[in-house]
This record gives sequence, structure tokens and C-alpha cells, in this order.
Amino acid sequence: MDHIKAIAFDLYGTLFDVHSVVARCDEHFPGRGREISNLWRQKQLEYTWLRSLMNRYVTFEHATEDALRYTCKHLGLDLDDDVCKALCDAYLRLLPFPEVPETLPELRRRGLKLAVLSNGSPHSIGAVVGHAGLVGEFDHLLSVDPVRVYKPDDRAYRLAEQAFGVTRSSILFVSSNAWDATGARYFGFPTCWINRAGNVFEEMGQAPDWEVRGLDELLRLYDVSGAARGQR
Amino acid sequence: MDHIKAIAFDLYGTLFDVHSVVARCDEHFPGRGREISNLWRQKQLEYTWLRSLMNRYVTFEHATEDALRYTCKHLGLDLDDDVCKALCDAYLRLLPFPEVPETLPELRRRGLKLAVLSNGSPHSIGAVVGHAGLVGEFDHLLSVDPVRVYKPDDRAYRLAEQAFGVTRSSILFVSSNAWDATGARYFGFPTCWINRAGNVFEEMGQAPDWEVRGLDELLRLYDVSGAARGQR
Repeated sequence: MDHIKAIAFDLYGTLFDVHSVVARCDEHFPGRGREISNLWRQKQLEYTWLRSLMNRYVTFEHATEDALRYTCKHLGLDLDDDVCKALCDAYLRLLPFPEVPETLPELRRRGLKLAVLSNGSPHSIGAVVGHAGLVGEFDHLLSVDPVRVYKPDDRAYRLAEQAFGVTRSSILFVSSNAWDATGARYFGFPTCWINRAGNVFEEMGQAPDWEVRGLDELLRLYDVSGAARGQR
Repeated sequence: MDHIKAIAFDLYGTLFDVHSVVARCDEHFPGRGREISNLWRQKQLEYTWLRSLMNRYVTFEHATEDALRYTCKHLGLDLDDDVCKALCDAYLRLLPFPEVPETLPELRRRGLKLAVLSNGSPHSIGAVVGHAGLVGEFDHLLSVDPVRVYKPDDRAYRLAEQAFGVTRSSILFVSSNAWDATGARYFGFPTCWINRAGNVFEEMGQAPDWEVRGLDELLRLYDVSGAARGQR
């Protein structure tokens, strides 16, 4: 890992827990929070992929609201406009995974440039990262919105290469989403998969270069690699 | 519906039941057939969408096998090569939905041209349609393989317009997959959604022009429309 100069992080599910909306869903639909959150996330992803393929981009907030409306209809739950807005707003205040706030400054101390590269709109990314007080940890907050297509399209990954201004092979891409880590590796980023839940990786012809259980493990990997470099 | 000159049908899930592989899965993994079939289908679709977005096309058979391997790993089931081949081969002998074989000739008798437009490879489409003895019912069996991208990319839908040689607004696209009916309608096909299971439609900014519970209902819709035309 000693050739890495910068790290681009996926946001949703990687640095921030998308299922931190479960409690808000449970307030409005008691006992259904987990079920709603799971299907909502699945549909949110599907809608970003399908709209990209159909060349019918809408913002991530729009796709997220559409996915919630589908989810409630599918589950037979009555979603009025106020509840819809309250639940979508919860997506702007997701919680970071516990080890994230302490690990980011440690990575910066090692001289690495950091960026978020997310399907979220600039507004959503700013709101989520700002709510957690982490804006100052990043050199760039990159949204796919300027290219109007979602990951895993190459045009999305290229944004990180352009922002850092270094070759893609020196940018580590970190994601908990195996499909995202797959797309990033096809693009040419070395890739680390954060596998907090003990899942299996996608079968699309790529494997991650590194697999960790949390962001703090990435720090150890980097230090071991740095120590190895120092010994040479 | 009296402006319709031709019909393009989706194959998997629309004319043929993808879950007719449940019994074969149950033979090898007793009691797990439905669970395997559901996840296998979900992953098969995801892999076609994601590979299209990543510009990393592989054949439908390849994506189908990858999806099965993921499914078994995810469910903790040991899949040896022989069982993998046996289950993938079951996808070449899917059963048509019960009303399909009797309805297709009725549509032809009304002067309509018929085609399959499928994500499947030419080999898969030929095998599935041939196994059911329905090859003679179609004017065209169209695979996305020549354009190396999957539905709902416009390049896939264009194949039907080119094959029929008539304007897209006179080609009815029939699918049970709501995402497929959405993509087809964005392309410009009038669209009929076969909703056998009583599902809700996707929330991606389109609604189908017609919704039916089975292919035989399409026949009634057409006759009512034809009768209306005759009365004018």
C-alpha cells in the first residue's frame, strides 16, 4: 500500500450507516423499520443503476424519494407527504460508523489526501458530512451530479482522478459496497472493501486488493506497508 | 390499441417462468429452492445492469452462472461444478406461463407480427423457445448480444424497431418486469405490463399504457380496441 497517495471513499454504507434511518422508520411504522430500510436501500441502488442505463438521471434525493414511495406501496404502508419528507430528511443526518471520525485524521497525519466520491448530490454530501462535523477531514467532497450518471459508470470514478490530479493507480478506493469496489477496480483504482457484516463479494470478475472489517484496519494495513517500505 | 402493428415480448419472467427452476434447485438443496431462485434472479438482473454500466458485457449465460455462484456462497451452500451446470441448464428449459402457448397464435391470427426481445443470448433464447415448441410463433427472436449491452439501455430496444422495420410508436412492448416496461416506454414503445403477481409498478417516472394479469387479457384488450375501431 506504499504507492498510495490519496484515498477516495464511498459515502453511503461505507463511512455512514444507511440503516441509521431504521429508528426514524420505526417511529412512523412501528416494528417495520428494518424491513423498510432494507428494501428502500435496495430500490435506491436499483433506481440509480437503471436511470443511468436509461440515460434518465435525476438527483440522488429524487431517486431516494422514489425508492421510498415504491417501498411503502410494496409493503402496503400509507406514506403521506409529511412522513415521506421526514424519512427522506433522515437520509441527510445518517450516522458515521463508530471508528470513522477517529480514523480519518490518522490517515491525514500519514500524508494522505482524502476525498468522498458519492452518488449523493452536493447538497446531500455536504449535509451528511457536515452533520457529523467531518467536513474538515476531506480535501474534496465529490458528487457524481456534474456528470449526471451514477457509479459504477467510469465517468463517476474519473471525478476522483481529476480532483486529486494523480494517476488512478495511486488512488485507493474504499467502499463497503462490493459492486462499487468492483466498478472502481475495473476503472483502475486499487481497492479496499470494508466488509463489516461478513458478506461475500460480488461475482463480477474482480476481487478487492484488500478486505477489512472496519476503517481502523485500513490504518494498520497502511502502517505495516509503510514499515515494510522503511526496511527496504 | 388499434395503431399496433407488432408486438415485442420480453422472455424471462414474461413469456417464461424463471421460477420454474425451483424444483431443480430443491432436488440439489432440499427445501431451499425458492430462496435460491429468488436471490439468483435478483443477482442475475443486477449483474446485467452493473456490467452494462461498467461496459463489461458478458453473455447472459455467463452472468447467470456468476449470479448462481454468488447466491450459493451467500447462502452458505456448497455448489460443485456438476450441480452448477445442471442448474444453469435448467434455465434453458424454463416453462412458458400456462396461457402463453394458446395466446400467441391468436395474436398472429389478428395480423400482428411477433418478436422476442431478450437479454438472453441467441443460444439461450433458441433453447428456451424451442424447448416449448414455440419457435414458429415468432417472426424474430432478438437477443441483445449483438449490441453487447443489456436492457434497459436504448440500444437494446432499438433492435426490435430495426427488425420490424416500423416506427416504434406502432410496436407494443410487453413485459412482466416493471423496470423493463419503464425503459421501453422511455424509448418510445407503447407498453403493456403483465402483472401476474399483483405487484406495484416501479417509481421511475413512467406508467405502463396497459396493465394485464396474463397474456390472454391482452387479446381481449386488442379485440375491444379493434371492435371500437370497426364502429367508427
